[in-house]
Amino acid sequence: MATITKKELIDQISEKSQAKRVLVKQIIQSFLDELTAHLSKGNRIEFRDFGVFETKTRAARTAQNPKTLQRVDVPTKRMVKFKMGRLMKAHLSGSSVDWAQKK
Amino acid sequence: MATITKKELIDQISEKSQAKRVLVKQIIQSFLDELTAHLSKGNRIEFRDFGVFETKTRAARTAQNPKTLQRVDVPTKRMVKFKMGRLMKAHLSGSSVDWAQKK
Repeated sequence: MATITKKELIDQISEKSQAKRVLVKQIIQSFLDELTAHLSKGNRIEFRDFGVFETKTRAARTAQNPKTLQRVDVPTKRMVKFKMGRLMKAHLSGSSVDWAQKK
Repeated sequence: MATITKKELIDQISEKSQAKRVLVKQIIQSFLDELTAHLSKGNRIEFRDFGVFETKTRAARTAQNPKTLQRVDVPTKRMVKFKMGRLMKAHLSGSSVDWAQKK
């Protein structure tokens, strides 16, 4: 298990493709920027096989600090939810071999 | 609120960049494929500002059907968790203007 950064992914993709690294970097960055922009507008983004990104709003609520019993107002919060697509699910449950053959 | 597909994002990105659509499509697809491959290996993927993808394993458990009271074995499941990065959080909480100025 390792942590992969954007830089490492860009390196991998530019090695495998014919494209120049600087172009790969620009495209990946604008991809991530577009995702952020769409999500902040409340749009749902669907990548077949990979998964779906959507935003949910968690309602404001009053919580209580269990130690001090003090009430704390927790404001509304918008969050991003990711739901796996079928290919991602298949890979994660280990049946990726079957999928690779069907491709 | 709309549903945005991969095709639409690819169109947007190729319009904004100088790159040919076919190349943008290839790079975005290999980006999503690499993400799937890394996640299935259990790797954590970190995009600064955007967010972090990681897999979690939910333990096997025995559930009960509330109607029939029948016990059901729910197997271990690997899931993808997405955690927002700071720029994504700022955009979603509506303070994107401040962020754009700081950029």
